[in-house]
Amino acid sequence: MKNEAEFRDFLLNGHLYYVPHVSIDCAIFGYHDQQLKLLLIRNRFVNGWCLPGGYILRTETLGQAASRIVRERTGVDNLFLQQFKTFGDPDRAQISKFDEARWFELTGLRDGKKSWLIDQTISVGFYAITDFSKTVLHTDFISAETAWFDIDRLPRLEFDHDAMVKEAMHTLRLQLYHYPIGYNLLPAKFTLTEIRALYETLLGKKLDVSNFPKKLIALGLLNKLSEKRSIGAHRSPHLYSFNKTRYNQALKEGIVLS
Amino acid sequence: MKNEAEFRDFLLNGHLYYVPHVSIDCAIFGYHDQQLKLLLIRNRFVNGWCLPGGYILRTETLGQAASRIVRERTGVDNLFLQQFKTFGDPDRAQISKFDEARWFELTGLRDGKKSWLIDQTISVGFYAITDFSKTVLHTDFISAETAWFDIDRLPRLEFDHDAMVKEAMHTLRLQLYHYPIGYNLLPAKFTLTEIRALYETLLGKKLDVSNFPKKLIALGLLNKLSEKRSIGAHRSPHLYSFNKTRYNQALKEGIVLS
Repeated sequence: MKNEAEFRDFLLNGHLYYVPHVSIDCAIFGYHDQQLKLLLIRNRFVNGWCLPGGYILRTETLGQAASRIVRERTGVDNLFLQQFKTFGDPDRAQISKFDEARWFELTGLRDGKKSWLIDQTISVGFYAITDFSKTVLHTDFISAETAWFDIDRLPRLEFDHDAMVKEAMHTLRLQLYHYPIGYNLLPAKFTLTEIRALYETLLGKKLDVSNFPKKLIALGLLNKLSEKRSIGAHRSPHLYSFNKTRYNQALKEGIVLS
Repeated sequence: MKNEAEFRDFLLNGHLYYVPHVSIDCAIFGYHDQQLKLLLIRNRFVNGWCLPGGYILRTETLGQAASRIVRERTGVDNLFLQQFKTFGDPDRAQISKFDEARWFELTGLRDGKKSWLIDQTISVGFYAITDFSKTVLHTDFISAETAWFDIDRLPRLEFDHDAMVKEAMHTLRLQLYHYPIGYNLLPAKFTLTEIRALYETLLGKKLDVSNFPKKLIALGLLNKLSEKRSIGAHRSPHLYSFNKTRYNQALKEGIVLS
């Protein structure tokens, strides 16, 4: 959404081209070098931070809508977004810090006249992991600010978004056992220490030194390269790369790691 | 829905007490003695089989709605329903076999007058596993027929319900590695062979003889009883029972089996 005219049209006529009563919210995790972050936006009409979210065009699949929403609100593109849960508690949209004065100023909707937006909404949650160091953030007319927050220092989020983040993290951690990760989070060639560090950061706990990497090798997901990295006297660990064919197959079919 | 008067009110005024544009569909798997089945209904207005489904009252959580829908449509109660995915492809509701004559006869909605029901709908999928031998099926005004079908002999389902069942089964199989099952699917005391057979039936493949049961014992989910079952000369396997406290904790927190 680029400007006020577009926003006003969205408020008044959006139900004609979006599916009413359904929204999408996205928990975008960012990894880089053992740091884990979460992408948040400050909405122009809500005095606090929340997940990037939006509505589904009547011509879009849910996945297409999620990609577009994240791209438009934050500038982050080409994410492999995965649905994790849909949120529909009747009280989930209590807009406690909703800025009524600003809303009325922009919309002219007063005296009980409501927008299609002000009605019960069920939200489909998506998550993704990306390398935050490679993202370029921007804002749009609705999102006044976009930023990466350390996962351990999140502000309290608006609506039911705290619960969404908790559930997204829970799903991400379970799915680590069944889908490969790392293709866009590690350099093209990496050591087993680096991929273990990635798993440990995402799982939030220390792992047996070689458990996950061993299983990844056994499943043919990692190729051992003849090349080594020199990191000091007598220390030159082998480098590995992903086997992209096996990786994509595993993404499709699921695997069992542990 | 008990009768035609109630159904007509639902058609004309349902959007006032249900959330429009959102439905729920439920894949209810039934297990008993190494057989796996799926619960299907034949809707009075669609000439084919589909998953039991319905709408969300504006006062309900999604989980409450799913439980009510299954209970009303099929008579099956007290299910531990879990969300697996939400379906929103724009063309998902192509009602190819929709019985227009019957619809008009019942609703009086002709000449372009539409019900709130005839608009784009996004559906939240839930699944559950129950012991089909303990269920009592019945029908309501919308569901003309309710039946258990062998998982290997399902009819082609209406709408996008074939894809729903596939996805429900995929999720169920992944979640078997992270949540305990069996409490309502096995007798109170059972042998390791019986619990292995349960896992094999649900996963659709043979397992290492003792892998899953061993892990369940290691996690404290199974109690070994002093009692044995006598099934023939020199064959009297130990009986086990679930540790309900550990079981409920594992349901809440997740585990890692493999």
